[in-house]
Order: sequence, then C-alpha cells, then structure tokens
Amino acid sequence: MILDNINSPADVKKLAIAELETLAGEIREALFNRLTKVGGHFGPNFGFVEATIAMHYVFDSPTDKFVFDVSHQSYTHKILTGRKAGYIDDTRFAEDSGYSNPEESKHDFFNIGHTSTSIALALGLAKGRDILGRKENIVAVIGDGSLSGGEAMEALNVAGSELGSNFIIIVNDNEQSIAETHGGIYLNLKELRETNGKAQNNWFRTFGLDYIYEENGNNIAALIKAFQQVKDATKPVVVHIHTQKGKGYALAEQNREAWHWTMPFDRATGKPTIDFGSGESYLEITQNYILNKAKTDKDFIVVTPAMPMAVGLGIEQRAQLGSQYIDTGIAEEAAVAIASGIATNGAKPVVVTNMTFLTRAYDQISQDVCINNSPVTMLMNFTAFDGLTDVTHLGIFGLAAFTNIPNLVVLCPTCAEEYVNMLDWATDQRKHPVLILIPGNEVTHRQADKSFGNLNQFKVEQQGEKVAIIALGDFYQKGEDAAANIEKHLGFKPTLINPRFASGLDKALLDNLKSRHSLVITLEDGIVDGGFGEKIASYYGTSDMKVVNLGLEKKFYDRYNPQQLLESLGITTDQIVETVKKFV
Amino acid sequence: MILDNINSPADVKKLAIAELETLAGEIREALFNRLTKVGGHFGPNFGFVEATIAMHYVFDSPTDKFVFDVSHQSYTHKILTGRKAGYIDDTRFAEDSGYSNPEESKHDFFNIGHTSTSIALALGLAKGRDILGRKENIVAVIGDGSLSGGEAMEALNVAGSELGSNFIIIVNDNEQSIAETHGGIYLNLKELRETNGKAQNNWFRTFGLDYIYEENGNNIAALIKAFQQVKDATKPVVVHIHTQKGKGYALAEQNREAWHWTMPFDRATGKPTIDFGSGESYLEITQNYILNKAKTDKDFIVVTPAMPMAVGLGIEQRAQLGSQYIDTGIAEEAAVAIASGIATNGAKPVVVTNMTFLTRAYDQISQDVCINNSPVTMLMNFTAFDGLTDVTHLGIFGLAAFTNIPNLVVLCPTCAEEYVNMLDWATDQRKHPVLILIPGNEVTHRQADKSFGNLNQFKVEQQGEKVAIIALGDFYQKGEDAAANIEKHLGFKPTLINPRFASGLDKALLDNLKSRHSLVITLEDGIVDGGFGEKIASYYGTSDMKVVNLGLEKKFYDRYNPQQLLESLGITTDQIVETVKKFV
Repeated sequence: MILDNINSPADVKKLAIAELETLAGEIREALFNRLTKVGGHFGPNFGFVEATIAMHYVFDSPTDKFVFDVSHQSYTHKILTGRKAGYIDDTRFAEDSGYSNPEESKHDFFNIGHTSTSIALALGLAKGRDILGRKENIVAVIGDGSLSGGEAMEALNVAGSELGSNFIIIVNDNEQSIAETHGGIYLNLKELRETNGKAQNNWFRTFGLDYIYEENGNNIAALIKAFQQVKDATKPVVVHIHTQKGKGYALAEQNREAWHWTMPFDRATGKPTIDFGSGESYLEITQNYILNKAKTDKDFIVVTPAMPMAVGLGIEQRAQLGSQYIDTGIAEEAAVAIASGIATNGAKPVVVTNMTFLTRAYDQISQDVCINNSPVTMLMNFTAFDGLTDVTHLGIFGLAAFTNIPNLVVLCPTCAEEYVNMLDWATDQRKHPVLILIPGNEVTHRQADKSFGNLNQFKVEQQGEKVAIIALGDFYQKGEDAAANIEKHLGFKPTLINPRFASGLDKALLDNLKSRHSLVITLEDGIVDGGFGEKIASYYGTSDMKVVNLGLEKKFYDRYNPQQLLESLGITTDQIVETVKKFV
Repeated sequence: MILDNINSPADVKKLAIAELETLAGEIREALFNRLTKVGGHFGPNFGFVEATIAMHYVFDSPTDKFVFDVSHQSYTHKILTGRKAGYIDDTRFAEDSGYSNPEESKHDFFNIGHTSTSIALALGLAKGRDILGRKENIVAVIGDGSLSGGEAMEALNVAGSELGSNFIIIVNDNEQSIAETHGGIYLNLKELRETNGKAQNNWFRTFGLDYIYEENGNNIAALIKAFQQVKDATKPVVVHIHTQKGKGYALAEQNREAWHWTMPFDRATGKPTIDFGSGESYLEITQNYILNKAKTDKDFIVVTPAMPMAVGLGIEQRAQLGSQYIDTGIAEEAAVAIASGIATNGAKPVVVTNMTFLTRAYDQISQDVCINNSPVTMLMNFTAFDGLTDVTHLGIFGLAAFTNIPNLVVLCPTCAEEYVNMLDWATDQRKHPVLILIPGNEVTHRQADKSFGNLNQFKVEQQGEKVAIIALGDFYQKGEDAAANIEKHLGFKPTLINPRFASGLDKALLDNLKSRHSLVITLEDGIVDGGFGEKIASYYGTSDMKVVNLGLEKKFYDRYNPQQLLESLGITTDQIVETVKKFV
C-alpha cells in the first residue's frame, strides 16, 4: 500500500501521478473504515480527496498554510499529515477530532467547526505574514454552501482590495450545501461552471479578486496544474474547482444531502448500524408540529439558515411546506433579520437551526428582533450538554448568551405537552420574541399549561419544605430524581419547581419560598456563569436563603463523556442529596 | 414656505417638480436648524434629501414600506411624515430620535441604528407581504459603506433567488463610508459609476438581482423617473444612485468624514459650539498609545471595521500607521476573524470599534478567537452607560455578553496608568484573547500594576472592615465616593476593591473577606443580569455574606438622563450609604 509510506506531506511529493491516484483510492478505503464504524462527515471528505492530495503535492505545509472551512472536509489532510492512524487503526479513532485541531498537528492552525470562517482566518494569516515580512502561501478552502455566510463575503471583500499579496482561495463547488444550495450567487456559480469559468459576470471578480476555473475537481493532474498556476501568486486569487460530493460511493453521490454526515453504517447497504429504537422523539414531535401548524395556519412560515434537518425537515417535508418555508442558505444573520421583517408585516415566522449556530446572529437577535419586540419564534436543536460534544458545536453557552438580551422570552420545556403548548403560544402571540430550546432528553409526558403570556411565572410541580429545587429545562428530570431521593434518604419532601422561563425571575414565588425553605438548589443545562441560577443567587443576596447553583463551568469542553462531566461537577443525584445534607 | 403645508406624504405628491426642488432647500434649512443646535448625522441626511422626496412622491408610504439602513439618513423622511416640528421648532427637538422609530410614526417599521440591516429587514417585510397575499412595494435604502456588512450581503444573496416578487433596494452611493470606503466591491461600484451602470461585471447582478443606475442622485426629476421605473416591479431590483454626501454645505461636501456626524456647530465657520475644554481625555491617551506602540513595535497592527474614530485615528493618524492599519470596511465579523489569523501567524492585532457594534462578531469572538486562544486585543469605546444613550447604541450590554465566553480576559481599567499598563500587557502577551473597555469617565491618575498575567487577581485599594465595595471599571470612582461617605457618615472604613478583571473571580480574596466583612456591594457599569456582580452573589450563595449587586436593569433604555437613571436604581452615593446602613 502506498499509504503505508505516507507519514508527512513530503512523502506525497515523491509520488508519480498514477501513484497519487492509487493513493486517493487507498485514502477512500481509510475513510470508509472510520466512517462506517464511528460516523462523521461523509460527502465533504469523499469529494475532496483529490484536491487535498494536489494541495499537499504543490504547496509546502505547514510553511504554506491551509485553512479548511468548517474543516469537515479535512480528513484527507489529517491522513496526509501524520494522523492516518485515526482512520486505519480502529483502536485509535479517538485520537482525531472530526475537525481541524492545532493540538493534533502543526499542519492545523485553528479549531474550526462553524461555517464561513476560512477566508477571514486565512486572510489574517496572510496579513500577519506580510507584517512579519515572510513569503509563504496562504490557502483557504471553502465549499458546501459556506460562501453565503456573511463572514465569508466580508472577507472576500477585504481580500479584494486590502491585501495585495499572496492569498489563494480554493472554492470547492460541489453544487450542494448540506441541503440544496439557496441564494443568487449559486446561479452565478452555475453560469461559471457552464462557461468553463468564462462568464462575463463573475461574482468573485466583482470583489476585485483574480479567478481561475478547473472543471475537473476530482482529477489530481488537473488540480496540480491549477494549483501550480497560482502558487506564489502575488495577489489574491480564487481557484474555483468543480467536484463531486460523496465521490466514490454511489449512494452518497446520488443522495448528497443524506450523506453529508452519516452515522456508522453498513457499506453494502448504506443502512445505519445503530438502532435508535422506535420510541417517541422530540425531533419527530417537532417535525409533526411544524407540518400540522403550516397546514392549519397559512401565516406560519419556517425560516432556516440551511439547517432544515435541525427540526426534521427532509426533502419531502420541505416540499409539503412549499412557500411556507424559506432557506436563506448558510446565513444566520439574514435569517433572523428576515424573520423580524416577516413578523413585523403580520406573518408568523419560526427560525430553526442548532443552538451553536445562533450566536452568529447575536446582534440581529438583539437589534433587529428584540429592540423591536418582533414576535419571532426561534426554535433551537442541540441545546443539551449531552447533544453535540465537539468543542465547536456545544449548546451549553446558549442560555448565558441569550437570556441576558432584554425582551427575549426564553422557554425551556420539560415534557412533550409543555413543549407543544409553548410552540403554540409562541407562534400565535404577537408581543414577544421567543426562543424555545428543543428538549434533548427522552420524551416524557405530563400535564402542562397552555399559555405563557404571564411571563416568568414558575410552576411548583411539588410543594414541599426546607429545600426548593429549581430545575430548568433538560435538567428538570434531574431535579425530579433529586427530589425523590431527598425524600427517600433524608426523610422530608422538598419543593420541586419547573421555572419554564430562563429569561426572568418569579419574584413572588422566590419571596414565598423564604417562609418554609432555607436552601434553594438551581439546576441548569448550561454554563452557570451568566446563566439562570446566578440571577436567583443575586436575588437572594441579602436574605438568609442559601443558594447552590449547579450547572456547567465556563469552559470550552471537548469530546467529553457526559456522565463523567456531571460527576465532576457534583450534579449526579447522589451528589445533590449529599449537598442538601450539608446545608439542612 | 412650501414646508408649512407638508404634513404627510400626500402633500408631497401634489407638488410640481420646481416646488419639490424648493422644498428640498427648505428641508435643508430645517436640517441646519436642528443640526447646528443639537448635532447629529450631517452628511448622510444632507445627501439624501432629494432621494427621500422622490421616494415619497413615487411610492405610497406607509402602505408601501421604506426601511432605512442605520436610519441615520432618515431625517427628511421624518420631516415629510408628520415630524417636522422636531426640526423647525427648537422646543420640540426631543420628540424625534436620530433614527427610525415605530413609536414616532406609522411610517417607520423598526428601531434601527446598526448598519447593514435594511435589506434583510425589508426582505422580511416583502416575504410577510407575500404570505399574506398583499401587493405593496417594499423599499430598502442602503449606503454609507453598509453594503460590506455580512448581514447586507447575506440578504442580497437571498433576495437574488428566494423571493421572486416586488423588492426595491436603493443603493445610495456617495463614495464614502464614515471614513473612506474599503473593500473590493467599491471598485466595482466605481466601475459602474464610470460606465453609467453599463459595466459587464456587476456585483448586484451576480447575486441574481435586476439593476438600474441613476447618476443624478441629487436631481429630483431624475430620481422620480428612476423610482417610477421600478415601482410595482415583480422581482427584486437594485436602484443604484450616485449622490453627494453632505450636499448643500460646502464644508461637508469637502470633508465628508468629519461631517458624517457633527456636534452642534456654527454654520458660518463650521466650528463646534460646545467647548470640551483642554483637559486630558482617554481618547487622546488611546490615540497616543496606538501611534507610539506602532512606532516602537513593527508587529503591532490596528484592525477596525470602519471605526477608526473610536480610538481617535483620523486621516493623518491612519497615514502614520501605514501598513500597520487595516480597515475591513463595515465588517465586524471579518475584522475579528482576521485579527485571529494575524495573531496566530505571530503579529499583534488590536481590534477597535464601539462596544455596541462588537455583538455583530459574537460568534467570531467565541469560535475564531476564544476557542483558539488567539492573543487578539479588542479595545472598545462607548462602553459606559452615560456614553451613547440611544437604544440602538447602548454599551451597557457588553459585559453580560462577553464575560461569559470562556478564555476571554475582560479588563476594566479605572485610571490612566492602569489603562495604559493593560494595553501594554494585552498587546504583548501571547496567551489570551483580551477585551479592554476604554474608560468613559474623566481621566484620573493612580499607581497601577504592570502585569495582569495572574488572571482574575482583584486589587484591594483600601483595606477596611464590615463592608467590602467591589467597584468595577467606570463605576470604580462611585465606589471610592461611597467608601469615603460610609467612613464619614457611618464611622467605619469599608474595604474598597478594584477587580480589574470582569471575566472571573478572585476566590481567595472573596474567601478572605468573610472574616471581617458581612456585606459585599458590587458596582458595575452594565446590566446586572449575566454580569459581574451575580457571579459574586453565586459564589457567596451558601455563606453568611450578604451581597448587593448594583448596576443597570436588563432593559432597552432609550435617550435617558444618566443621573436620573442612577437614582432610580439606587446607585448614587447617598443611596449606597443608606443601603449599607440597612445591613450593617
């Protein structure tokens, strides 16, 4: 095997073209080995094997520096830069993250997981190089719909006029985002593909950038030629290459959306090898809710920045929604602002994506939505600490980030009935912007209130004494367990409160607690700093009430074991009982 | 006067072209009246008088809907929509904010003050209109450099392919941002101007948008013709008009940067009529620091998203900085990400703008900078509650927003020496991203430490007993006053602490306080929710220490009197002494 002898980019440079092609096949086998067994990004990596080989053949990493957008296509880069064990040795999968990572290799410069950042980050490397008087090539890779993100376009604009030195932007055009692409620029990219890059109107050139086109984006020889043409260029240049997403696996080439990311699967059939059972899921509840709501309320519309799958909207469901669905492409800022406009003109928008991506629209939520009290509903997936555990995709910062924006009502449902009622209330009311966290737990059922218009009214789910547990959202069930165990082990029944609102306090309820309680324990599925519990500690600051705030630390956790993390933070049921024992 | 009879847009439609031209002159007189006496945005408004008249002549506001970007050019719109008193009657200036405001008029749809939002907000209005089956025209106005903001470009991209119905984007091209424009697209706009809109390569068309050009952007008849051409258009179209910023006042036409915004001034000379004295200012200290640092350290570079004046960098200072200065145009996301790249490649970037605009880069600060621990310094102006008091420009949310991002060191200086030492430390160290708040107070002097590498070490400025006042940043002087008055009126000397760091706790110090103190008062120039003091309340949650968190409420305050606000929140010296009396 050629791959046996590849331990660094220098080994790639020694090979003949035919050997490089063989290497590409071997790398795909390595990718299959990892992806069938642990899952990960499939289409982006399979489509970018040849381009990565050509990059390492032409440029001199790490002196020349590569920055991969999202970095979900960087597996081949990892394999070629000393990290192949994470792909071919089943015992070493855990050594490699799914994204670029400077702690793994000197060939990586940033932890990257959000979209549309590579051009700006690489432009910064180029500017830093110029300041220090060096000459290396700086190469940004971008594709899979990321060009439409504001950060990417801002950086194209800066590159087009403010740098004036070497900077190479490889646009990996596979005609696809995660779902289908949306946005006018993709029509221009199509025109460029169809004219072999010759179209008069050229989006990249309008930014002041040089431009070359290579149709054969999975042909190593053609790519080497293209990259050699721009190597050591003395001004910014775009290399637009046309690739096949999922190249090398028929199922993935045919169904690019489904194979953007995959769970562990059987190579012969493409079927997942993990059985998730057939129980209820909040994803299915959400999907059903949206489809039914759209049918019965023609003013209802889903707005998403390229993340329909965050709420289970596949190709078929999107077709059902028709004009009651708008995908802005990867463009969180525009999605949120557009929703504000939609709401202001009388319709009922719900913005859907994953919590980790919503910070991209922080200013829009504050300025475009909340200052104007636009009745926009934002519905976020993967908010839970045990959802996505990659450092770049954590949902645990959402409460601290968004609950401190005035006017925003943040709702944390704790069972199916409450979740659906919150969705009903949020989408129909016309007074408040509302952020709803899709539960990350197993589905549970309880009776729940219908209206949430009386803001910040906490719900006492069990009236007790001595200790009050205020357990928010996905940590409500931990509160239930703790309450049951306190009763069992300490011989008294504590009060259990479901606050429902993360964005304000029920001061009357907190005052009432003082008469029969001496300890309040808050539980929240997010960082304690800036979050929910601290507000309660502050409120009780001059009273005799003792307060313990339980939650996560302000820290960039990475690929942790959720249960171990809970233990390290004192948030297991046994630990909570012990804490109570100390203070009561 | 024609203006006497203008009380709504209907009155504009009755006039002949010659009368409209006379009206433009009268409106400029009204603008002079307000701006000479209370100040405000000069250039944007003087340049857009004719276009606004033509808009109201052609379209039917408020059925047809206008959205003004930044809305700092909306004065003429206000004058024509029933709000002229705010311009011609000196007793009624306070009735009108400097921005669009739905509470003032049904002709305004959003409070707007940040850049690059109009296209997305208006696109949302258009989409809402389509859902509800109506037919009105929706018009977005954008100019003054705002096109380069990610939110604007994202929305252009969505408009180019996802709407397919009426949507008119008026691009007010006055060849200027606040400072000079930066970015490749401005070269394209120049090409379009020089070819009367005929250039083959057309940035707007590459987004899939229709396009027309009007060279005479200050000619009412020409503008009416252009707007009539696109009225009731059935797909999105850009109307690119070429205007003179500051039109009608020679000084402002000549010096567009200085006259973007003005203080009250004398019309004959252009000189400000408010005397700010000749004392020291933090702006001057900042300007001097930057220029000296750049001279002595060739790796140092200023990065700004079009806000050099935030740190006093005028045309002359920017020329001095040369290649040690990069203006990304209005593009906060790219500015922060580029700074991360610059730092990663070994140079020393400092990002400068106003605090209110930094939320535009929230995700970039978290993902591109802080996850990667890039040693980027961010230096923010107008962080104080008594700096900018317009609802869209408040600095009071910064601490709550940014201190909860892991790895970010947030420094709040309290005197000139400390400020300069913090700048020195932040720019030279290579371990941490650092956010520094430029003080908003009068300059004071004290001895200060040189290094801040021992993170979160609070400084005891006065050792006392019973009560500890922990007074952060711009509220440090309030802490000093309170401490002196407690000693004077209550007969004991309290402890006074300058925490310096807003992003973490000095737990050892907090533990030590327990032995001789029973009350901690925190003071912070920002909202209490999610901020500094709550972390201290949480830390003391299970101890006997009483904690009072003083600061602002989580609320969109608008054009308030700062001193009255302090009183309403119990933050005057007398009130603090009273609070102490209650608990000691």
